[in-house]
Amino acid sequence: ENGFVLLAGPCAIESEERCLRVGEAVKEITDRLDIPYVFKSSYDKANRSSIESYRGPGLEDGLKTLEKVKQELDLPVLSDVHTIEEAKKAADVLDIMQIPAFLSRQTDLVTAVGATGAVVNVKKGQFLAPWDIDNVVEKIESTGNGKILLTERGVSFGYNNLVVDMRSLPRMRQTGYPVVFDATHSVQLPGGSGDKSAGEREYVPYLTRAAIGAGIDALFMEVHDQPKEALCDGPNMVRIDELENILRQAKAIDKIVKEG
Amino acid sequence: ENGFVLLAGPCAIESEERCLRVGEAVKEITDRLDIPYVFKSSYDKANRSSIESYRGPGLEDGLKTLEKVKQELDLPVLSDVHTIEEAKKAADVLDIMQIPAFLSRQTDLVTAVGATGAVVNVKKGQFLAPWDIDNVVEKIESTGNGKILLTERGVSFGYNNLVVDMRSLPRMRQTGYPVVFDATHSVQLPGGSGDKSAGEREYVPYLTRAAIGAGIDALFMEVHDQPKEALCDGPNMVRIDELENILRQAKAIDKIVKEG
Amino acid sequence: ENGFVLLAGPCAIESEERCLRVGEAVKEITDRLDIPYVFKSSYDKANRSSIESYRGPGLEDGLKTLEKVKQELDLPVLSDVHTIEEAKKAADVLDIMQIPAFLSRQTDLVTAVGATGAVVNVKKGQFLAPWDIDNVVEKIESTGNGKILLTERGVSFGYNNLVVDMRSLPRMRQTGYPVVFDATHSVQLPGGSGDKSAGEREYVPYLTRAAIGAGIDALFMEVHDQPKEALCDGPNMVRIDELENILRQAKAIDKIVKEG
Amino acid sequence: ENGFVLLAGPCAIESEERCLRVGEAVKEITDRLDIPYVFKSSYDKANRSSIESYRGPGLEDGLKTLEKVKQELDLPVLSDVHTIEEAKKAADVLDIMQIPAFLSRQTDLVTAVGATGAVVNVKKGQFLAPWDIDNVVEKIESTGNGKILLTERGVSFGYNNLVVDMRSLPRMRQTGYPVVFDATHSVQLPGGSGDKSAGEREYVPYLTRAAIGAGIDALFMEVHDQPKEALCDGPNMVRIDELENILRQAKAIDKIVKEG
Repeated sequence: ENGFVLLAGPCAIESEERCLRVGEAVKEITDRLDIPYVFKSSYDKANRSSIESYRGPGLEDGLKTLEKVKQELDLPVLSDVHTIEEAKKAADVLDIMQIPAFLSRQTDLVTAVGATGAVVNVKKGQFLAPWDIDNVVEKIESTGNGKILLTERGVSFGYNNLVVDMRSLPRMRQTGYPVVFDATHSVQLPGGSGDKSAGEREYVPYLTRAAIGAGIDALFMEVHDQPKEALCDGPNMVRIDELENILRQAKAIDKIVKEG
Repeated sequence: ENGFVLLAGPCAIESEERCLRVGEAVKEITDRLDIPYVFKSSYDKANRSSIESYRGPGLEDGLKTLEKVKQELDLPVLSDVHTIEEAKKAADVLDIMQIPAFLSRQTDLVTAVGATGAVVNVKKGQFLAPWDIDNVVEKIESTGNGKILLTERGVSFGYNNLVVDMRSLPRMRQTGYPVVFDATHSVQLPGGSGDKSAGEREYVPYLTRAAIGAGIDALFMEVHDQPKEALCDGPNMVRIDELENILRQAKAIDKIVKEG
Repeated sequence: ENGFVLLAGPCAIESEERCLRVGEAVKEITDRLDIPYVFKSSYDKANRSSIESYRGPGLEDGLKTLEKVKQELDLPVLSDVHTIEEAKKAADVLDIMQIPAFLSRQTDLVTAVGATGAVVNVKKGQFLAPWDIDNVVEKIESTGNGKILLTERGVSFGYNNLVVDMRSLPRMRQTGYPVVFDATHSVQLPGGSGDKSAGEREYVPYLTRAAIGAGIDALFMEVHDQPKEALCDGPNMVRIDELENILRQAKAIDKIVKEG
Repeated sequence: ENGFVLLAGPCAIESEERCLRVGEAVKEITDRLDIPYVFKSSYDKANRSSIESYRGPGLEDGLKTLEKVKQELDLPVLSDVHTIEEAKKAADVLDIMQIPAFLSRQTDLVTAVGATGAVVNVKKGQFLAPWDIDNVVEKIESTGNGKILLTERGVSFGYNNLVVDMRSLPRMRQTGYPVVFDATHSVQLPGGSGDKSAGEREYVPYLTRAAIGAGIDALFMEVHDQPKEALCDGPNMVRIDELENILRQAKAIDKIVKEG
């Protein structure tokens, strides 16, 4: 068995400059630790709590930025897609196309993304059981695309709270597809601050080690150089200078788990 | 205070003939009971559990059928919309445009529907707290549209189960907008039958009376002449011949509640 | 079918004087509304959140007070029992012996209470499904006692919150035993104020009407003349001067429901 | 920081012979792996789902068996206590006295166990938030006893299911007391088989590694030589011949976590 892949970057594209800066900093760390790295950032946050929230630069400008990151830093890139139209355009740039959790049951989107032939990363909806993902997998497979990643990002637990059921990781791996753990959205408290989500960044290292301990194929993590200034998801993003220690431990645990 | 409105019809448009038949049968009952009635049916079920599930006739044919029902039966009509494009086209026919629960946080869809000027019925996502709806309301209001309905259809409760928190009804009414109780989706067991949702139709009368007791403005209910043959949501739809008794009790309870 | 019974009184016995005052005030109301009334108060609150919390006068003094209420006001009385020893002593005074929710799975307590031959009211644990009560019923029936009441008081829903699943009421009635709705504990936010539980008294009328709408046999409600001064459960107790209106509506709804 | 302690043994005392056999087999493994080991078995299962379920030999005979294990195998022993009377008698034999999850809010029991001066292991109730344990800790501390262990064994998640919120482990460690992860009760499906609990033994290794990854002080695990024949909790107990591998991985992960 192989080690794990890191999918990481700032929640939203705030500027080309910041994307390059964060991407480069993460790349330095993952190079040192020998962890394959995919840059992640969103060109549009289509489901922010409030109408006032920052959404990103939009599809066109966002793809340009991701293209730039891809070439300057020589990294594969991942972003979310929200509509059939976006899927077609984004396929030219993105290596991994992500289906947001709230949209994980939208058949047309799921199959449109599948049909691009790109790697598809589906975030399991907060309202889905681990085994419900089997139907989503079949929708993607129906397009002939078998490059599928399945992401755990927490499940609804009462109001304004999520819980990570670690049983979901081995259960989703039974599909035969790689399973990703989203360590930063899993510590969100959705809607927990009225017109925005709160988050408990302090639990990211614990949940990361737990998920790696349970056994996963990739780790998803939103990182930022200054989370407190971030335009999106600040309360749950990880500061870059905390990243290396988290990954170092994760890598050591992963090795033990995969050696059996 | 006024009585309640009924939003009802077959889950999906199966045929024009069935829509007319169901609509007429319900109209007869609601006329007798003096309950305002809006016909509901979906032209597309865009988030079925499985890729194999029946989805409906699609936008164009579906709108034609709804237009027909509207004119032949002289009823306002309601259907769900899933994309910005659909919203524009559907606005010509629909009196009430419904935003599906899974899509209740999608800003672009919510504002596109709001911008049509039609009455907007938002189903509260299974992953939202009652107070989270305040942000959705603001998104719609930002379009200048103040014709808003808010629907309770159950909240995630463990896996493959929903629970109706009756506190959500008075809490959502605090927004000042009318609140709808969706009696048939609330008894769904989502994904409860593997590749489709199960449902507990037998609880519909109990939950209906409970919600009316708590106090609501409208009742949403999927009904069918032969639920066991239905192409969608059969296990939770109400048989037409059971409808009158449910509504009669609901109306009597509603009167007591609203007289205070 | 008959109307519903009211089980009501102050959470804990604070003083004989208060018990008599509250009991008399409630009796006046229930006499006026023709609702059978059972006085409820606890001699010991054995599972308060904090070691500092008020617990009550204890078994012996408490039973004396309840005896007094019973005779002076000519009312049947109910209180919780927590141990086998208490069960034996309390049986001399109590008409209904209540098993607290947290203790609803303790076999020895359940059977000891059953063996007294008194009416047993089991509160369904916050951790039990409606159908789990069937096993509790069998434990009581094994003592030859068939005078059983089953109470819904909310089920765990995330942290520090409860939700009432109204489906549980008809489901528990399938046992053939009368079902009670506990309207005031159902609005508790357990542990919601750190070293004590919070509560949302404002939802009591809504949930009461909802439960009566779903269909129940008895209503349980903690009432107080000055909830803000109460030594226990103040945030969720109902003020006596609000009681009559709640009961009047409940009675009218109950009639509709039971006439079918 | 030190490694973790193992608390393990058959769910219920089925016979002296079996206790000695299981204890010896586990001791052999833990000696080999250099893990401190405490023998666990219950003399009474006081809250079985059904009145028909096996409960154990009772206090007196059970304590004799535990005394025997203690001396023959030179192991400290742990068992649950359910009443004040039991607490006093059991204190002569038990090194660790465990408070069952359902009873974790019963003030008299908690303080009686505290007052014995033994090490107290409180299982966090399935209905408690991680921070609710602070009040339980204060109750024990009020007796002057500061030898406290806090156990996570899953929290209610819908009906007949539990979920382990790994955030609870670091949160409970903030009390300053050692935290235990109960790997076998955490995979129970309470009441999941009608008149008994079901369980998903296959998830024990995953949850164990996850909890060790998050960081704990002790691991609790029910083990049996023939779980399928066990008189209690068979579906979630671990077979002894699977134990060594689980512990070996756990120990390696624990080392990484605690070295930071």
